[in-house]
Amino acid sequence: MISFESDYIAGAHPAILKRLAETNLEAAPGYGSDRFTLSAKEKIRKAVGRDDAEVELLVGGTQTNAVVISSMLADWEGVVAARTGHVSVHEAGAIEYTGHKVLELEPRDGKIVPEILERYLADFHADGNREHMVFPGMVYISHPTEYGTLYTKDELTRISGICRAYGIPLYLDGARLGYGLVSPETDLTLPDIADLTDVFYIGGTKVGALCGEAVVFTHGNRPAHFMNSVKKRGALLAKGRLLGIQFDALFTDGLYFEISRHAIDMAERLKKVFRERGVHFYIDSPTNQQFAVLENETMEALGKKIAFSFWEKADEHHTVVRFATSWSTTEEDIAALDRALQEIQDEA
Amino acid sequence: MISFESDYIAGAHPAILKRLAETNLEAAPGYGSDRFTLSAKEKIRKAVGRDDAEVELLVGGTQTNAVVISSMLADWEGVVAARTGHVSVHEAGAIEYTGHKVLELEPRDGKIVPEILERYLADFHADGNREHMVFPGMVYISHPTEYGTLYTKDELTRISGICRAYGIPLYLDGARLGYGLVSPETDLTLPDIADLTDVFYIGGTKVGALCGEAVVFTHGNRPAHFMNSVKKRGALLAKGRLLGIQFDALFTDGLYFEISRHAIDMAERLKKVFRERGVHFYIDSPTNQQFAVLENETMEALGKKIAFSFWEKADEHHTVVRFATSWSTTEEDIAALDRALQEIQDEA
Amino acid sequence: MISFESDYIAGAHPAILKRLAETNLEAAPGYGSDRFTLSAKEKIRKAVGRDDAEVELLVGGTQTNAVVISSMLADWEGVVAARTGHVSVHEAGAIEYTGHKVLELEPRDGKIVPEILERYLADFHADGNREHMVFPGMVYISHPTEYGTLYTKDELTRISGICRAYGIPLYLDGARLGYGLVSPETDLTLPDIADLTDVFYIGGTKVGALCGEAVVFTHGNRPAHFMNSVKKRGALLAKGRLLGIQFDALFTDGLYFEISRHAIDMAERLKKVFRERGVHFYIDSPTNQQFAVLENETMEALGKKIAFSFWEKADEHHTVVRFATSWSTTEEDIAALDRALQEIQDEA
Amino acid sequence: MISFESDYIAGAHPAILKRLAETNLEAAPGYGSDRFTLSAKEKIRKAVGRDDAEVELLVGGTQTNAVVISSMLADWEGVVAARTGHVSVHEAGAIEYTGHKVLELEPRDGKIVPEILERYLADFHADGNREHMVFPGMVYISHPTEYGTLYTKDELTRISGICRAYGIPLYLDGARLGYGLVSPETDLTLPDIADLTDVFYIGGTKVGALCGEAVVFTHGNRPAHFMNSVKKRGALLAKGRLLGIQFDALFTDGLYFEISRHAIDMAERLKKVFRERGVHFYIDSPTNQQFAVLENETMEALGKKIAFSFWEKADEHHTVVRFATSWSTTEEDIAALDRALQEIQDEA
Repeated sequence: MISFESDYIAGAHPAILKRLAETNLEAAPGYGSDRFTLSAKEKIRKAVGRDDAEVELLVGGTQTNAVVISSMLADWEGVVAARTGHVSVHEAGAIEYTGHKVLELEPRDGKIVPEILERYLADFHADGNREHMVFPGMVYISHPTEYGTLYTKDELTRISGICRAYGIPLYLDGARLGYGLVSPETDLTLPDIADLTDVFYIGGTKVGALCGEAVVFTHGNRPAHFMNSVKKRGALLAKGRLLGIQFDALFTDGLYFEISRHAIDMAERLKKVFRERGVHFYIDSPTNQQFAVLENETMEALGKKIAFSFWEKADEHHTVVRFATSWSTTEEDIAALDRALQEIQDEA
Repeated sequence: MISFESDYIAGAHPAILKRLAETNLEAAPGYGSDRFTLSAKEKIRKAVGRDDAEVELLVGGTQTNAVVISSMLADWEGVVAARTGHVSVHEAGAIEYTGHKVLELEPRDGKIVPEILERYLADFHADGNREHMVFPGMVYISHPTEYGTLYTKDELTRISGICRAYGIPLYLDGARLGYGLVSPETDLTLPDIADLTDVFYIGGTKVGALCGEAVVFTHGNRPAHFMNSVKKRGALLAKGRLLGIQFDALFTDGLYFEISRHAIDMAERLKKVFRERGVHFYIDSPTNQQFAVLENETMEALGKKIAFSFWEKADEHHTVVRFATSWSTTEEDIAALDRALQEIQDEA
Repeated sequence: MISFESDYIAGAHPAILKRLAETNLEAAPGYGSDRFTLSAKEKIRKAVGRDDAEVELLVGGTQTNAVVISSMLADWEGVVAARTGHVSVHEAGAIEYTGHKVLELEPRDGKIVPEILERYLADFHADGNREHMVFPGMVYISHPTEYGTLYTKDELTRISGICRAYGIPLYLDGARLGYGLVSPETDLTLPDIADLTDVFYIGGTKVGALCGEAVVFTHGNRPAHFMNSVKKRGALLAKGRLLGIQFDALFTDGLYFEISRHAIDMAERLKKVFRERGVHFYIDSPTNQQFAVLENETMEALGKKIAFSFWEKADEHHTVVRFATSWSTTEEDIAALDRALQEIQDEA
Repeated sequence: MISFESDYIAGAHPAILKRLAETNLEAAPGYGSDRFTLSAKEKIRKAVGRDDAEVELLVGGTQTNAVVISSMLADWEGVVAARTGHVSVHEAGAIEYTGHKVLELEPRDGKIVPEILERYLADFHADGNREHMVFPGMVYISHPTEYGTLYTKDELTRISGICRAYGIPLYLDGARLGYGLVSPETDLTLPDIADLTDVFYIGGTKVGALCGEAVVFTHGNRPAHFMNSVKKRGALLAKGRLLGIQFDALFTDGLYFEISRHAIDMAERLKKVFRERGVHFYIDSPTNQQFAVLENETMEALGKKIAFSFWEKADEHHTVVRFATSWSTTEEDIAALDRALQEIQDEA
């Protein structure tokens, strides 16, 4: 069945598989000291435009969040996040498992609101009881967010300024960063993000790789003995080459951006199809995840022809469902979706 | 440079890469619910010979140990292991990170000694202070061990009997299980291991896969909500297909055993080469890791021609070094090692 | 200075000190196996009216919350609490330190609202993503709440029913339980609480003891090897007699209730004084904590004569401050407060 | 029954109870900001002879070890201890619960051997695998040890030197420090200990207090936001005065040393009684814990008249038992022990 269930339904972009095959027999040392990983790190450093950036490759997103957050927070600190943030709701308590609280703020369109953040931090430090409270020690944002939305350069600049004023790092979860970088509606570049954050990751799993996320400590601020902390959390891959080769491929000849642009292109066509069929969206997403509001009957009928994800109930008669595009989405997939919608409308 | 540094120096066995390529475009749901994973689990269940076995796929070895041990121990329990066990020394404290102590026993040839285990458990439960102590709640063994040695069927049966008498699970770390199963010196089959242990894992990373370890709960004893515990530890792979396809390939037409036999065959030739060149071994290993004792000068000279691993100092003038074989080791590699040793001897 | 800063500003009720002195030279075994502790447990069991209740004595409130919650939750579970709950905001992340998330609900008057709880649990279990989320595994309420308010019998019965329907324990934090039990506005008895909850604690520290909290597992549901879990969390007191003697005294001749009634009586007089002086309350509290809304000038002037606690800003010109009464509050203290308020009004 | 079971069988030294009674009605702020605590800290700072010392009061020994060790170790570090150390065996895994490994060394007479420590640290840092291992980040010693033995000034100086050479703190567990300081066989003073260690604690619970341990960070090295870390671990006492008053009394007019001297005096008499009755000791202890080796029949007969602690089996026919003295031990207790031994010998 044609599927828009997620952006990780297929294997890897063919260029990645090709590189894995070409390099397969070459002997390489383990744990990330192989030449592919070194090359990938160098290319990423170039792409983010900072000589003092330090890059580390990890396997998955929740793992990356837990490793980065827990190795950067002090004992008495927690991480500030939107209530809808991935670390707040969809990581099964992985941050708390490391002994740290997620301090949740009310979001707007899935994003942290600079004013709310500033007031929260100011109130915290004015509170006479703060010795009994969890110190906010980092701010976590996802970009694109879990709802596909994007921070503007102005918003990110303000959040960054607040973090710097309070001396706490800003961490950007870029599980789908590529889609944010090439969105027609963004005014943020990769170097902008590197300048405005203290640490972020460039998602591989959801942007064409089999697995892998590239963490960028933007200014020589990688935690001491980071490799030990990675190992201690069970996150050190023996065949580090698997990550190195993939990110080396992704950052060769702009593949990462090419993959992202294709997905955004497909998402725009998908939006058009839905709009033409009279379907509304739950939120206006400029990236590869689209949240359509379907009548329950339509949802059921469509579900028999096309795969997508249940998101949440809208009301008694409507449901929010998610359609995601990726490198593997084809024009034919979009056409099939259109036909399916038409058939359902014809039957009604 | 020709390398015997480890059994994870190359990519994946070509048959695995081939399957990844063939299945690449097929849409599949995430997190291990894909058809490849289901097929792999079924094949492994067949191979271990128990209908009540439950199989779960994880990414790496330390991760697997931490997830399995911490999700099976009760709050007041720790895991018993040999002092030389991987969880005791080479996992950067990953078990302790989950809040549990590794209770270390004096090993013999890298193995837990049944008599020592039995006395330890008896003494613990006779101790009036046990309310202030960590309860032994699981026994961890590695097979092959970190020194390449193997438990005999008799030893494993006795350890299993002790564990069952005390009502605690026996966990076997099979990071290199394949090499143990096909060693000419073993009398243990995969079904034997499934019968005698409560949980074990079949190592993929070190036996031809890019990554991946298959955990087998041998008798319907998978912890409740295991997927949540995996996610909470950052160990849940979004593209679970990556693990499923690999294990499906490894357990099709006996590939896992074929890979293992090739490595053992190469190890036997390597042993012969060393013995003929007058080199002794630190320990008599019947598997794919060989620990040679080299004079320091020989070690340095050889290190310029062939890659291997430093293990430990033997005395002032000798060093223990490790040579590992795998699916990617060739007869030519062995011949090159032989030539290198000869050249060094000629120069001396 | 006369102080209403908290209910733990003085030492212990004199009857407790007297018992400590009388028993001082008697030799007793450690760690809670002394005869005083056994007697205290028996008296508490009688007071709660359940033969199957199991009582354990711990030192402090945050410690008790962390020990009880973490030893009763399964690995994949978190604890549901009001956003204003003590475990949510004022324990410096002690619950998260044990690896579990606090799942925060919107409160009303400091209390969990049954309807909100029910909807939350229903929605959770209907969510297709729950394998990626923290399971609600316990409900935590405080009674009296952090705002001095009380659950009615009807509310507690409904919350209890919801918990039982979902098979999760209900835990009541009774740091100030005595004040709730004797409040003129409550319809809940100690046996009611034992019947409706699965575990609760009877606060000693804030009700006349030097330290100490008595945990009651209401129906034979104390976690296995609980003493080891207590020790592991650094919460096992060597001289357990210190807790035993105090709770034995508190539950002899109704001292616990007598102390509580005195404090409530003083709180009622204090409310009268404030009302007569035209001061309003932030919330209508029927227990020993009173939250007055003072004009900032009044607050500053009063603070020079009488000690109390800052709670939070009400608006630009007003502040919420807390006055607490206890066994050590005297009629003279109340009179002094009245005089101080009068002086400030006279000066104005 | 007359008891030598432990040094915490009685309540508090009468001078402590007296101070608790005298100060009982004085209002004081909570959490250690009361004037008694401030006074106690100042007196302890004077006693240790260092202006840059920082003192914090906690409730119990295991709690203190867990708080100090976990708040001073970095993420990638563990604590080095003797295999017989309290943190290694008798704290139910409290250190591991904080996520850190106890790295155990072979002891001699319950003590860490400087040469073994030095070799361990040197080997660790020479190991190419240390990125996969737990870094030794602190050295833990107990003084007196769990066997009543003492470090000499020379031994402590050497261990201190090794720690400083490797840049890791030395932590001394002084649960029974008083007995070590006044032992006739020691050449170490309290200022010596403050100079040679980085952090230590002065035990109260086992030296006459109801509870309480005074942690001394010897040179301005208290961890940042220590109070939050204490709270987070459930170790912050609301009525901090309980600890402050006790330590203030203990360090007024040399009470701490007087208590200790009395116990040592009683221990010397006890040793004399045993020796005259032909009983040997398991180890030569110069402090208040004495480990006698009794024939099993003698042990059983004596156990009917006098209370003491089982320690461990010596051989089939003999058992090691512990006798502890304290401030509450009287000459009559010693005489009663003597009579009991005589009666047993007469009956034999």
